[in-house]
Amino acid sequence: MKRIGLLTSGGDCQALNATMRGIVKGLASNIQDLEVYGFENGYKGLIYGDYRLLTSRDFSGILTRGGTILGTSRVPFKTIREPDERGIDKVEAMKQNYYKLRLDCLVILGGNGTQKTANLLREEGLNIIHMPKTIDNDIWGTDMTFGFYSAVNIATEAIDCIHTTASSHNRVFIVEVMGHKVGWLTLYAGMASGADIILIPEIPYDIKKVIEAINARAKRGSGFTILAVAEGAISKEDAALSKKELKKKMEEDKKLYPSVSYAIAAEIEKETGMEIRVTVPGHMQRGGSPCPYDRMLATRLGSAAAKLIMADDYGYMVGIVNGKTKKIPLGECAGKLKMVTPDAQEIKEAKRIGISFGD
Amino acid sequence: MKRIGLLTSGGDCQALNATMRGIVKGLASNIQDLEVYGFENGYKGLIYGDYRLLTSRDFSGILTRGGTILGTSRVPFKTIREPDERGIDKVEAMKQNYYKLRLDCLVILGGNGTQKTANLLREEGLNIIHMPKTIDNDIWGTDMTFGFYSAVNIATEAIDCIHTTASSHNRVFIVEVMGHKVGWLTLYAGMASGADIILIPEIPYDIKKVIEAINARAKRGSGFTILAVAEGAISKEDAALSKKELKKKMEEDKKLYPSVSYAIAAEIEKETGMEIRVTVPGHMQRGGSPCPYDRMLATRLGSAAAKLIMADDYGYMVGIVNGKTKKIPLGECAGKLKMVTPDAQEIKEAKRIGISFGD
Amino acid sequence: MKRIGLLTSGGDCQALNATMRGIVKGLASNIQDLEVYGFENGYKGLIYGDYRLLTSRDFSGILTRGGTILGTSRVPFKTIREPDERGIDKVEAMKQNYYKLRLDCLVILGGNGTQKTANLLREEGLNIIHMPKTIDNDIWGTDMTFGFYSAVNIATEAIDCIHTTASSHNRVFIVEVMGHKVGWLTLYAGMASGADIILIPEIPYDIKKVIEAINARAKRGSGFTILAVAEGAISKEDAALSKKELKKKMEEDKKLYPSVSYAIAAEIEKETGMEIRVTVPGHMQRGGSPCPYDRMLATRLGSAAAKLIMADDYGYMVGIVNGKTKKIPLGECAGKLKMVTPDAQEIKEAKRIGISFGD
Amino acid sequence: MKRIGLLTSGGDCQALNATMRGIVKGLASNIQDLEVYGFENGYKGLIYGDYRLLTSRDFSGILTRGGTILGTSRVPFKTIREPDERGIDKVEAMKQNYYKLRLDCLVILGGNGTQKTANLLREEGLNIIHMPKTIDNDIWGTDMTFGFYSAVNIATEAIDCIHTTASSHNRVFIVEVMGHKVGWLTLYAGMASGADIILIPEIPYDIKKVIEAINARAKRGSGFTILAVAEGAISKEDAALSKKELKKKMEEDKKLYPSVSYAIAAEIEKETGMEIRVTVPGHMQRGGSPCPYDRMLATRLGSAAAKLIMADDYGYMVGIVNGKTKKIPLGECAGKLKMVTPDAQEIKEAKRIGISFGD
Repeated sequence: MKRIGLLTSGGDCQALNATMRGIVKGLASNIQDLEVYGFENGYKGLIYGDYRLLTSRDFSGILTRGGTILGTSRVPFKTIREPDERGIDKVEAMKQNYYKLRLDCLVILGGNGTQKTANLLREEGLNIIHMPKTIDNDIWGTDMTFGFYSAVNIATEAIDCIHTTASSHNRVFIVEVMGHKVGWLTLYAGMASGADIILIPEIPYDIKKVIEAINARAKRGSGFTILAVAEGAISKEDAALSKKELKKKMEEDKKLYPSVSYAIAAEIEKETGMEIRVTVPGHMQRGGSPCPYDRMLATRLGSAAAKLIMADDYGYMVGIVNGKTKKIPLGECAGKLKMVTPDAQEIKEAKRIGISFGD
Repeated sequence: MKRIGLLTSGGDCQALNATMRGIVKGLASNIQDLEVYGFENGYKGLIYGDYRLLTSRDFSGILTRGGTILGTSRVPFKTIREPDERGIDKVEAMKQNYYKLRLDCLVILGGNGTQKTANLLREEGLNIIHMPKTIDNDIWGTDMTFGFYSAVNIATEAIDCIHTTASSHNRVFIVEVMGHKVGWLTLYAGMASGADIILIPEIPYDIKKVIEAINARAKRGSGFTILAVAEGAISKEDAALSKKELKKKMEEDKKLYPSVSYAIAAEIEKETGMEIRVTVPGHMQRGGSPCPYDRMLATRLGSAAAKLIMADDYGYMVGIVNGKTKKIPLGECAGKLKMVTPDAQEIKEAKRIGISFGD
Repeated sequence: MKRIGLLTSGGDCQALNATMRGIVKGLASNIQDLEVYGFENGYKGLIYGDYRLLTSRDFSGILTRGGTILGTSRVPFKTIREPDERGIDKVEAMKQNYYKLRLDCLVILGGNGTQKTANLLREEGLNIIHMPKTIDNDIWGTDMTFGFYSAVNIATEAIDCIHTTASSHNRVFIVEVMGHKVGWLTLYAGMASGADIILIPEIPYDIKKVIEAINARAKRGSGFTILAVAEGAISKEDAALSKKELKKKMEEDKKLYPSVSYAIAAEIEKETGMEIRVTVPGHMQRGGSPCPYDRMLATRLGSAAAKLIMADDYGYMVGIVNGKTKKIPLGECAGKLKMVTPDAQEIKEAKRIGISFGD
Repeated sequence: MKRIGLLTSGGDCQALNATMRGIVKGLASNIQDLEVYGFENGYKGLIYGDYRLLTSRDFSGILTRGGTILGTSRVPFKTIREPDERGIDKVEAMKQNYYKLRLDCLVILGGNGTQKTANLLREEGLNIIHMPKTIDNDIWGTDMTFGFYSAVNIATEAIDCIHTTASSHNRVFIVEVMGHKVGWLTLYAGMASGADIILIPEIPYDIKKVIEAINARAKRGSGFTILAVAEGAISKEDAALSKKELKKKMEEDKKLYPSVSYAIAAEIEKETGMEIRVTVPGHMQRGGSPCPYDRMLATRLGSAAAKLIMADDYGYMVGIVNGKTKKIPLGECAGKLKMVTPDAQEIKEAKRIGISFGD
């Protein structure tokens, strides 16, 4: 007999449902008298005691469904020790609801911020399993997060679509890919779609080098150029600013441009007189049905989580390392970010085939 | 023996290549000594005499390829009588190149603007066939244009992706669909994707009615709402302005908001305090591989055009009416726009199932 | 106040759920105290009184879901007057359940066979609305059935996939497309995918002409050929047989070959020594998520059905004719089949671009 | 200055073109006076001296194109030492053409059989690089082959389509997935699509266990069951036969059934009286456009191969191990098969969530 809680927290992404299905199928196939409580809208549901008892029926047919059947919300880690709207300490409220339901464990699906709160709850004595969800693939300790490849597919298809127009019109196009701090998604979608220039947060760009790369293509007879630009792409000048100066600069930019790609476009236009088009697929990248890669990954991670729960072995993130699912102690990975390094093998491979990173 | 010219003009879209393949396969299967001249980058190629002789090989394998193998550009109709960069009258330059190559006819693929120039060339004595290309489906005289359903597919998938996120987060989302003057694309993608509110240029909206519709959904327990908004959506206030006032208003708006959806989002936010997200798939909607519907349509229209050419029967747009391909005299359709009417059957059907148009 | 019954009958296809959603949204948006009874597994549910009361919740989020939430089954029209397993006349059983629930009307989604039974129930005095569901598009009285274009998409993608292999290996490939009696699906998928030879039931083929077409391609330097063959493709010899002889012949063929394509492949191989590959996507063609075209069509037809129900105007199929939804008296269309005619415009257009029908 | 040869051999698959593009872009971006010779139709082109000089133009725009621009064919390894049609030893003919063109190296894209010949050519003194191509992912020494995930996507979508029909009709369906000797593709597509029973060559099945699994589902209220069956699935009885007996048995089966799935269906039908449907997507699985995962992998492997060539470092397969591209000595990997082992982590994970392997 087991009583487990489930919640999904942070920005939604593909394969949240697939992961929960994997966990519950794993448990239900092996445990009699399983009770699964789903907390609604992320940590909020745990704080305010909004939950519902779920049956296998709830998990049937959701392998392919995007979003989360539980709903989600953002409760920033830095506010987690502040009282909630009732004036109750949020952590205490969560613990009370956990104990009130006499849960054996709580499975939390979320990204980096979510993981920090999950680790805090572990430190507070709760039995926690964390499942690494994010389209950014920036969670330390796992090679891959579910959601990443579904987002790569959408961003790649967006660039594919732009490709036909760019080449028909001999135009320079920027496609802005999600990723404020980390460039994995832009790097993978950019390489998979044949982008010519890729700008990511980890490799500050020099606008002159970017323009050189565009001109070099034109000289070789390619009338069009496609830039895959991460939301958090940053110029060398800005990267050299102090944190305070940078914040000020970004606030000013925000008044002038809807997002970084428009600022880059404006700068290239000013320098060259070319007309640059910008496309921002935006939230599309985290929506829709998960791709088969993510469904397989989610199913494997879910099944691995079920194994831990059956063994009463808690306090881990369930990740995948070198193709094998694996438990990673939350205390080791929480608070760390997995970023692209400028000497990553993928970067070298990209540069070798002529992709410019503007550095 | 036949010598024909081909050009693609205006914004590119899906199935341009499929249409040209249909025409050339139709001719090549029936005519000995066919010569096909492809003008590069739209009317520009015809003006400056940039062309290349094409072989069947050029048309092999392009049924599924987006964009145009000929390249395209925009040469506005209102500048067509102005001299080109060499100081030569553009229309004269086009006629000279047509006669120099001793063409039997010129097949022009393009939208409304392109069609006006095509009709002018017809009036000037050239043998012209026009093929109705546009994602907007706004060409008068044909039920359907190629490109439309491919764009519907992309816009619908974009809204599908947003759907999972909107419902997981209980958010209000605006997806901006292409269409400055005409709302067919937004109407079809909106209905196909289950959008709750659809705003199109032909039905000016009252922001109060839009907010009412959002609130009504919330009252019925639906935490999220999706708006499909055409680029050219317009409020009742703005629609009542004089042309001059409207132009001024739009210039002001442009300084404040990247596009109409952001303005609408800001207004709803101001009135309600809700947070509204905006997604703009943009140019993606005209790119990528044509869908099977468009490939079939393009093949049929192409084959029908070949029939006209074989009969030396010129001066038409080749369209589809009530499921049958048909020739429509260019003199009848050029300069007319096919718009959504507020009493269109689709509008009534949409309203009946509870979709709000904000009117 | 209205009490309506819903059932889906015959082979499932895409957009059954989308259609029911359209009907129920149309009614629920306009009628107070709506009660919707869903009969399970087609006419069986009506015969045996297996139904459940449905709420708007059941119709939420099903626009994109394939299959049918009600389940379906085949109850052949010719057995409809035979007693059921309890010994009760099936028609009487259906009428009793209809009256017991005091239904205002019964909406039946199905194909040609289903329609005949629907018309019988109408003749028996029930208020009936029929919705034209089939991937075959063979229902008389409507230009289009829902399911058709979703199936075209799948069959076209199948041929697209085969295309790359066929051209890389210089092989002759047969792709067998669904359609026992009617060739619309094969014709449309074949033309949309660039098939070289299309064999459909309505145009009996001469195997010599088929081989000639393959050889002609080889002579022109095309090493590969793709045949789109309908399940019900038939040779001229077989088409000339008496019904009895044909039945015998088909039974013999069935022992030798899994399906018609294998028989055709064997015959070509015998005559030419070529190696022919066969691919049969089969049931895939009726499954999966409906395409945007079908979702739009289903929504429109559903909304139009709701209008009829609100006006207590029964006894119709709801179809689409020349782009407008329309009611067609069941007495007029039941029992008729909409077939491809050898002089259909699409056939002429296909032949003009060099597609062979083996005739 | 470098002169390299390229050939693609064996069954085609997705991302062959993407891989060649990666290699050539890597070389062309770094080497002056690069000459690339493409041999036509696999080893045949090398044997008979059929090649063409390729330019960067040939590699432009092929990232997303399925098949191979070079054509391919099968020349079985066991016939490689037999004389060709001219009576010349095939290996000698290949060597002569290699030396005649003064190639610096020959890059060979292919699967296991191709690799054995590649290794033989290496032993004969040629500079060889092998790129691991196959939808089976059965090449020893690399974690992943290009083509695999594109095939997983197609097989998964096929099962997804069948899913809606199976559940609407309460039917048992078999989807036959490619893989004669190795079950990776069936395992991954089966898990990603939520198949209930997965039969692969590496785990011989007991038909009684398969039927038990179907019945257990029915007992739990699930009216439908989906089996993902590899082409090479084998029963325990057959697996126990001697090689000779097995060959005889398979020949007999071949007379009775088009493929293994039909035999399994027949056996289940005989035992249970249920009606089982079979779908065989077949060659579709190796065709069409490569998925973004494969495009990224192909680009990385291609770039890594270019690095080796620039360093004159030959005699390797270029694979990916633990996320890093890597050279693997051909002498180590040629002739070995990477199979699923019954205690693979994926198998345990699948069993834990209730998937039956019939063992």
